[in-house]
Amino acid sequence: MLAKPIITLTTDFGLKDPFVGLVKGVILSINPEAEIIDITHNISQHNIFEASQIISMSCRYFPPTTIHVVVVDPGVGGGRRPLLVITEDYYFIGPDNGLFTPIYEEFQSSFFKVMHLTASHYFLPMNGSTFHGRDVFAPAAAWLSKGIDVFKFGEQITDYVTIPSIKATIKGDIVNGNVISIDIFGNAVTNITTKILAKLTPDIEKSRYRVKYKGAELPLVNYYADSSAFGNGLSAVINSFGHLEIFFYKENAASKYNVNIGDSVEVALI
Amino acid sequence: MLAKPIITLTTDFGLKDPFVGLVKGVILSINPEAEIIDITHNISQHNIFEASQIISMSCRYFPPTTIHVVVVDPGVGGGRRPLLVITEDYYFIGPDNGLFTPIYEEFQSSFFKVMHLTASHYFLPMNGSTFHGRDVFAPAAAWLSKGIDVFKFGEQITDYVTIPSIKATIKGDIVNGNVISIDIFGNAVTNITTKILAKLTPDIEKSRYRVKYKGAELPLVNYYADSSAFGNGLSAVINSFGHLEIFFYKENAASKYNVNIGDSVEVALI
Amino acid sequence: MLAKPIITLTTDFGLKDPFVGLVKGVILSINPEAEIIDITHNISQHNIFEASQIISMSCRYFPPTTIHVVVVDPGVGGGRRPLLVITEDYYFIGPDNGLFTPIYEEFQSSFFKVMHLTASHYFLPMNGSTFHGRDVFAPAAAWLSKGIDVFKFGEQITDYVTIPSIKATIKGDIVNGNVISIDIFGNAVTNITTKILAKLTPDIEKSRYRVKYKGAELPLVNYYADSSAFGNGLSAVINSFGHLEIFFYKENAASKYNVNIGDSVEVALI
Repeated sequence: MLAKPIITLTTDFGLKDPFVGLVKGVILSINPEAEIIDITHNISQHNIFEASQIISMSCRYFPPTTIHVVVVDPGVGGGRRPLLVITEDYYFIGPDNGLFTPIYEEFQSSFFKVMHLTASHYFLPMNGSTFHGRDVFAPAAAWLSKGIDVFKFGEQITDYVTIPSIKATIKGDIVNGNVISIDIFGNAVTNITTKILAKLTPDIEKSRYRVKYKGAELPLVNYYADSSAFGNGLSAVINSFGHLEIFFYKENAASKYNVNIGDSVEVALI
Repeated sequence: MLAKPIITLTTDFGLKDPFVGLVKGVILSINPEAEIIDITHNISQHNIFEASQIISMSCRYFPPTTIHVVVVDPGVGGGRRPLLVITEDYYFIGPDNGLFTPIYEEFQSSFFKVMHLTASHYFLPMNGSTFHGRDVFAPAAAWLSKGIDVFKFGEQITDYVTIPSIKATIKGDIVNGNVISIDIFGNAVTNITTKILAKLTPDIEKSRYRVKYKGAELPLVNYYADSSAFGNGLSAVINSFGHLEIFFYKENAASKYNVNIGDSVEVALI
Repeated sequence: MLAKPIITLTTDFGLKDPFVGLVKGVILSINPEAEIIDITHNISQHNIFEASQIISMSCRYFPPTTIHVVVVDPGVGGGRRPLLVITEDYYFIGPDNGLFTPIYEEFQSSFFKVMHLTASHYFLPMNGSTFHGRDVFAPAAAWLSKGIDVFKFGEQITDYVTIPSIKATIKGDIVNGNVISIDIFGNAVTNITTKILAKLTPDIEKSRYRVKYKGAELPLVNYYADSSAFGNGLSAVINSFGHLEIFFYKENAASKYNVNIGDSVEVALI
């Protein structure tokens, strides 16, 4: 563990209620040395897929041994299991409802393990069934950050829940993908990545592409403001996460052009 | 005081303006060791009752000696007094407008004291009258967190302001209560608590109850997803704060069923 | 540098996406000792003027050597330069698009310097052009907070970009100003400051003023609740930043009276 262990929080709790503050109070009551960082608390309510995308794109920007707590948990209090996922660099704590699916796919190694959290002496005493973020996941993360051995938290399992992943596909010279998220600026992020484009061509940067969306061809530019060279219409860019993104310079592409999650996008080599 | 003293913030400042950031800047300028935790900054504007409920349900999840700063302060700059409330485990700092009413009720002990903050050398020099969160409450909390004796901040008072509390009442075998808050998920929290139910029956968990809301009977379930066994309509649960809560699984009960703060709820022993 | 160096963040990133969390992850990966404080992430999107006002009114409430990172950056990835601005007490890091204009005006001294950040070994390796907050500004701030000499980050420049400032003007005994921002309470802050009023009269506090807005005369009161003595209509107050502010006690003046940024306000000596 780090001298100042880092615990991140990703939830659908919002910022109106005191829920996030209480999670932090519980963590600091157990480990005053923990550094707690909010990734976001504005996941769409009960949206497990969205949370899975966010944690997958975010986790690598934190130092090794960071503990990522993710709570989007419509099944709270029922039979779904609380989990601790261990990868080479990170720990993940949250409910067994599929929100770690991309973690299971991307972080396989000899270190990979999924534990069912059963050691309830590491939880708060529970008076109700609606807030395991505070009563189960927060204290488990805090005790883990103090260096408690992972095997003390429960039993290893292999039948953890997964959700279907939405991957781009390749047919000949064409990649077919979808919009998977829309950010607060109205930019539409797709699942077409530089990794997939690399399967089309050995030299991504020197190749030229045709991007098609809703029947129209979009210019693929190098940076947002660059779209002015093409008349500033709907454009595409490879964003800083390595994903193809559809945007409209300084405006909200999603609301202006009715771009929605799930929309098809096509990229072809020219 | 803790090695890393904790100061929490509960306000109606919102997160658009820099107000919260400035409060933190002032605290850290005085005590760089302070750990500052946001409980919420989205209290409804000027809503003293709401703030009083939030701090009362939140304060116990922080370690002893935590300093809770609460600023919902429509009277800022006028005659209302700035206060420091001392209880066995916590400190509370904020304006004397009733927002600490539940603290006065729940934390009586030989440690209980209310001080009128008058030692203005612990405040920032003031150029205006509109931001005592930054100029009075933040520096007082920061100096307190450095271990300044509480008696140096002002004089003890006993005529502090209170607001009416909204308590559930018992008549025979029936508890009458009200919705006192609605969370961001649309769940409606009532003032009917396990503490009150314990006055109806010696064994809360084994007893059976009838919950009535707007003329209809609601199933009382063990956890949110459990309401599917009853057709997933409007349901009730004892939440993790020990309060009866009305909810609709995975949907917004408050907007779907027009649930409002103040609505009557009845619980009867069967 | 401080033992616990402070880095503040002011952006238009919002709190829905993980952008702010990633900026913090990058900073802590480089300097685990950094204390990161959010000023706000809700600057109106792409609004450079608003960001410039916010950082100018906020920066002084943090301890000397604080590093203020400001990212409102529609030109990200293009030709605009990343900057490090050095003043007697603070560092400022962000894009060269004018958002530091008030800093250039107010913090001139023998310490004042503007550096073009060119030492890319202090940046993250870049896979895209859309997120320099994470890839350029965050790591530069983190390395600076570790004590790296400012001259190692790039070259000094003098042709930095500025935006027009909107200053109040004096004609005879009358100050003409404008609404420059509206806070979350609906209070309208003007650019008429105590500094400007001091040019009208040697004794600001004892002088009497007439405030005119939209043809009507507004009472100038000492604190918000004081406006009840004048019938609680639209009123003016000198706020805690030393600016004349138009408000309506406990209500949203901006929406109730259609107050907008840019509106004219006049103050005259009586």
